[in-house]
Amino acid sequence: MQQEPPTDSSGFRFTPLVVVELASNVKEETITWLLSRIRDQQQNGGAELFAEQLGPSVEAQEKENPNVFLVGASWQRLLSGAEDVGLFKEYNDGSMRGFTRANKHNFKDFKGDGDGFLSMAECQYIIKHELETLRAKDETHVPGHSQAKLYPGKSIIRRLLSKGLLVQIFPLHEKEELKRLSFSWYKKVKLSLQPLDDIRHYYGEGQALYFGFLEYFTFALVPMALIGVPYYLFDWEDYDKYVVFAVFNLIWCTVILELWKRFSASLAYRWGTLSRKKAFEEPRPGFHGVLGFNPVTGREEPVYPTAKRHLRIYLVSLPFVLLCLYLSLYVMMIYFQMEGWALSVHDEDPTFWTGILLFIPSIIYAVVIEIMNLIYRYAAEFLTEWENHRLESSYQNHLVLKVLVFNFFNCFASLFYIAFVMQDMVLLRQSLATLLITSQILNQFMEAFLPYWLQRRRNKKMIRKVQKKRTLEDKELPLVEQVRLEADMSTYLGTFDDYLELFLLFGYVSLFSCVYPLAAVLVVLNNITEVYSDAFKMCQVFKRPFSDPAANIGVWQLAFEAMSVIAVVTNCALIGMSPQVKAYFPESETQLILWTVAIEHGLLAFKFILTFLIPDIPKHIQIKLSRLEFESLEALKKKKMLEAAELSKTFQ
Amino acid sequence: MQQEPPTDSSGFRFTPLVVVELASNVKEETITWLLSRIRDQQQNGGAELFAEQLGPSVEAQEKENPNVFLVGASWQRLLSGAEDVGLFKEYNDGSMRGFTRANKHNFKDFKGDGDGFLSMAECQYIIKHELETLRAKDETHVPGHSQAKLYPGKSIIRRLLSKGLLVQIFPLHEKEELKRLSFSWYKKVKLSLQPLDDIRHYYGEGQALYFGFLEYFTFALVPMALIGVPYYLFDWEDYDKYVVFAVFNLIWCTVILELWKRFSASLAYRWGTLSRKKAFEEPRPGFHGVLGFNPVTGREEPVYPTAKRHLRIYLVSLPFVLLCLYLSLYVMMIYFQMEGWALSVHDEDPTFWTGILLFIPSIIYAVVIEIMNLIYRYAAEFLTEWENHRLESSYQNHLVLKVLVFNFFNCFASLFYIAFVMQDMVLLRQSLATLLITSQILNQFMEAFLPYWLQRRRNKKMIRKVQKKRTLEDKELPLVEQVRLEADMSTYLGTFDDYLELFLLFGYVSLFSCVYPLAAVLVVLNNITEVYSDAFKMCQVFKRPFSDPAANIGVWQLAFEAMSVIAVVTNCALIGMSPQVKAYFPESETQLILWTVAIEHGLLAFKFILTFLIPDIPKHIQIKLSRLEFESLEALKKKKMLEAAELSKTFQ
Repeated sequence: MQQEPPTDSSGFRFTPLVVVELASNVKEETITWLLSRIRDQQQNGGAELFAEQLGPSVEAQEKENPNVFLVGASWQRLLSGAEDVGLFKEYNDGSMRGFTRANKHNFKDFKGDGDGFLSMAECQYIIKHELETLRAKDETHVPGHSQAKLYPGKSIIRRLLSKGLLVQIFPLHEKEELKRLSFSWYKKVKLSLQPLDDIRHYYGEGQALYFGFLEYFTFALVPMALIGVPYYLFDWEDYDKYVVFAVFNLIWCTVILELWKRFSASLAYRWGTLSRKKAFEEPRPGFHGVLGFNPVTGREEPVYPTAKRHLRIYLVSLPFVLLCLYLSLYVMMIYFQMEGWALSVHDEDPTFWTGILLFIPSIIYAVVIEIMNLIYRYAAEFLTEWENHRLESSYQNHLVLKVLVFNFFNCFASLFYIAFVMQDMVLLRQSLATLLITSQILNQFMEAFLPYWLQRRRNKKMIRKVQKKRTLEDKELPLVEQVRLEADMSTYLGTFDDYLELFLLFGYVSLFSCVYPLAAVLVVLNNITEVYSDAFKMCQVFKRPFSDPAANIGVWQLAFEAMSVIAVVTNCALIGMSPQVKAYFPESETQLILWTVAIEHGLLAFKFILTFLIPDIPKHIQIKLSRLEFESLEALKKKKMLEAAELSKTFQ
Repeated sequence: MQQEPPTDSSGFRFTPLVVVELASNVKEETITWLLSRIRDQQQNGGAELFAEQLGPSVEAQEKENPNVFLVGASWQRLLSGAEDVGLFKEYNDGSMRGFTRANKHNFKDFKGDGDGFLSMAECQYIIKHELETLRAKDETHVPGHSQAKLYPGKSIIRRLLSKGLLVQIFPLHEKEELKRLSFSWYKKVKLSLQPLDDIRHYYGEGQALYFGFLEYFTFALVPMALIGVPYYLFDWEDYDKYVVFAVFNLIWCTVILELWKRFSASLAYRWGTLSRKKAFEEPRPGFHGVLGFNPVTGREEPVYPTAKRHLRIYLVSLPFVLLCLYLSLYVMMIYFQMEGWALSVHDEDPTFWTGILLFIPSIIYAVVIEIMNLIYRYAAEFLTEWENHRLESSYQNHLVLKVLVFNFFNCFASLFYIAFVMQDMVLLRQSLATLLITSQILNQFMEAFLPYWLQRRRNKKMIRKVQKKRTLEDKELPLVEQVRLEADMSTYLGTFDDYLELFLLFGYVSLFSCVYPLAAVLVVLNNITEVYSDAFKMCQVFKRPFSDPAANIGVWQLAFEAMSVIAVVTNCALIGMSPQVKAYFPESETQLILWTVAIEHGLLAFKFILTFLIPDIPKHIQIKLSRLEFESLEALKKKKMLEAAELSKTFQ
């Protein structure tokens, strides 16, 4: 029997958690069917959730979509959902354990019937999971939309999404929570660490790990920045100090990346995602193929041969990426030619107009790079979509790899060219500084202030609209308006671009650190403002994202490590090329190069050994994990002993 | 109640599986106590096994140890032990699953009461496990030997071993099985693959994986050998062919190591060790420390601070190893000086005696190296023991690392010196061939024929001794004599030395492959005889070892991979130094070196990408593993649903 939902003060009979927006042209029949499936009992294959249609806003317009639904659930349902998604919570003894209802009273903070035990972000994640695992029974298509085919076991929500019948699902903000969070995060004046636990509580582990990484990365760069300042101020260019700085940087980069792994494991343990088992991943909405049987689940689902996907990756995507890299190289060569030409014109006849001409190539190059980045991003998304990956995670990895390589190339190719082909260290330092500073300013503007300004305008319009109808107490919007407002907010597209930005900054710091020691200082300053602007945009500009139970920063750890390996090579080469070092080997360049290569190999070997020696998980966490495993083994053994004893009694 | 053991034809009342030999000076009191603990029921903390004293042999001598015991178990006990050790067996549907008695009839080959379901090696492993987990209750010391302290939870067998009261535990051979195995393995004439499944059945997974690796490695080298032959025969020394061969070798080495991982995963899956959970590891017998509490189990056991161990490793062991490496380098330099001196003497006055003088340095050097290896091995064992590792696996890893580095250095330092300091390719080729061939011959002799000859003599003496007393039918020894004979056989010390030998051979093939293409041919030939001699020594020379449920070749995979990375560096350097390549860059040596370094970096990068791209576990096994996990998740979910349904019924 469906429980009667409690009545809420806002007129709703339950606390709304998630918003489901269907397309405005969806048939009435479809809506009735979907709602009944969502509300139906689990035994009958339903999701057993509460769902209600959102009423029209104060001043309903023609174009307003009526098909917006609010979804919630009873506490009982949420607790059973927590078990389904394998949520880890803190146990009485301080360890983290998978939540089970049978054991619920042994969990810390579990009081009464469990009200308040789960955070709102967790509840929303559970509802999302339950909606996504709502499967078709014997329907062959979505009622009312015969083009949206279904087969037993297919996730209904994913089919609706892929057919465009479902516009979006998003979790609601909590106004009070958000105010508190944003105050402790970026609004208060005194300097302090970010409230990572609160961020995780509100936005989930994936977000919190990004902000944790951003903060960690900033602190980790402080020693490099501090050491870099005197190099810049006093123009130290002796051989020894140079080498000392570079070697320190290289080892430091390795150490901080390794220590981050340990720190992130601590965070993930505390947040319960470290040992949480990943549920079996569903095919992503865009995945298509011939209907077959999944070899793992035995369920009917589309199947697409891996060999075909590999052909697409290696015969189309890979050549395409290589072609783009070549093109980017070609554009760079044109830029250097243009610059050479402008310089020669200016040298011949130095007037005001030829002085301006000097800037033209850089501006054109910058614009072309931005355009190329944009086009490439679309192409990469298209190609990765076309590769038809079954899992969202594999799709993301392939996309990240493609975009990463191209962005790395676009950002650093010109610097590499200046450093190793032109061998002009002064120009290198200049270009590095220019690129670093302009990209930082541009980023901050594009990322936070522009969307904020747009959002603010929209916000004000809404408030004005509401105020026309009635006077508002303390400027709070009623729930209906709030939902409409949030539905119109931009969607947060994940941490991809944020990590990419950090990755490129890390490149500026590490690749050419011995040439421009001030880079670390600039990046530290940038990161401090980045914390504020990112926090601000999360809280004010974007829809609340669903939380994502991440245990680490994933493919980005690998990307940062790859960058630190490349940094060893470039720094060794730069030092080998510096005139101070060259002066040590006046008679033989061969000797110099051999020494440089030998030192480089030694550093790389040392780096790998260091990576190997520092354990990825801190010992106290390792002990806690082993203890949990040991206890479950012992419990199993005890159970077996009891069974055996009973068995032997039966035989006697 | 203790079941009455069945009477065996050999006069024993059960099938003896494992031999326990106590020291001859152990008190009667101790023996009574130990036997009662072994025979006692599990509920009372006993091992619930059968144990009987072995009678005196036909012609009992004064010095014969009377304290030899045979241990066996009932089928019921062995099946419950199989559950304790987490044995994986084949299920009805062809997948591998952890054995449980509750589910026993769904396992393939389980018939009747389970007689014959477990192989003898598995039974012996189970008995070893049960003996090792026999724990002290409230005894404060071993009865009769007050110096052998005990505390609740301490493994009795390990304490007896560490105090020298227990001489050895070993599993018995099965004469019939062994005859069959040795016939199909190395006695039959026609060429075929090794019977890996039978080897695993008799010796366990660790052994079988070694022989699997040996065979795989041999086959993998065949293409290199085939390509190498024409290079040697026709003296091809063109630039292109040279480079092609080297590049092929490097990629091939990477590919075969990656494919081995996949192959070994297939084997380990088939043998049920791939997903078998490791039981909680007990401290090794030699481990000592202040009595404290294990943070994982909460049991009382010796505790030794990790920081202290790290100090010992980094402040004593590491400097010691470096000093030894330096010493080895020093000895090598003396050798080259002596050789130079002998050569100059011979050049001045070439007589027969100075001709002999030419060989003296090599002989002295070879002898000194052997002595150094021997002394170092003892030192390494002493140091690793002194480092006081808690786990046997960690002890083994540290020992392997120490021995590996020193052996690598001793074997290859002179070759590196010839190649890169003297730059004498003809001498390099010569030394390589000499080292490879002599070490192979020496190894085969020391490893198989010598022990065999010794064993044969011992064997004959025993048969003669028995025949004095009575005439034997078909030369079969009675059980008592058989046990005494096996107790006197050499103990097999694990696969360490076998892998080390393969590792060094791999070094000869890969490090200088472009200089001496015939190396692969020699190694292939060596490996073919190695299969036979190793098989022979396992079957005839050594005591049967306990099986070891390995899922892979462990630290050796890493060692081989490290070698293949070093091989890229040396081969690139060798090619860069060859006169044919130098001729391409007549004007500038710098260009040549830069190109060499660039290509080397490219190859290394390619190698890492390749390692990353080839999945470690074949897809069909990945699917089977995921299916198992998925099924257990689904079963859990179903169980929860039923519980919830019942709960809701109760409330209605």
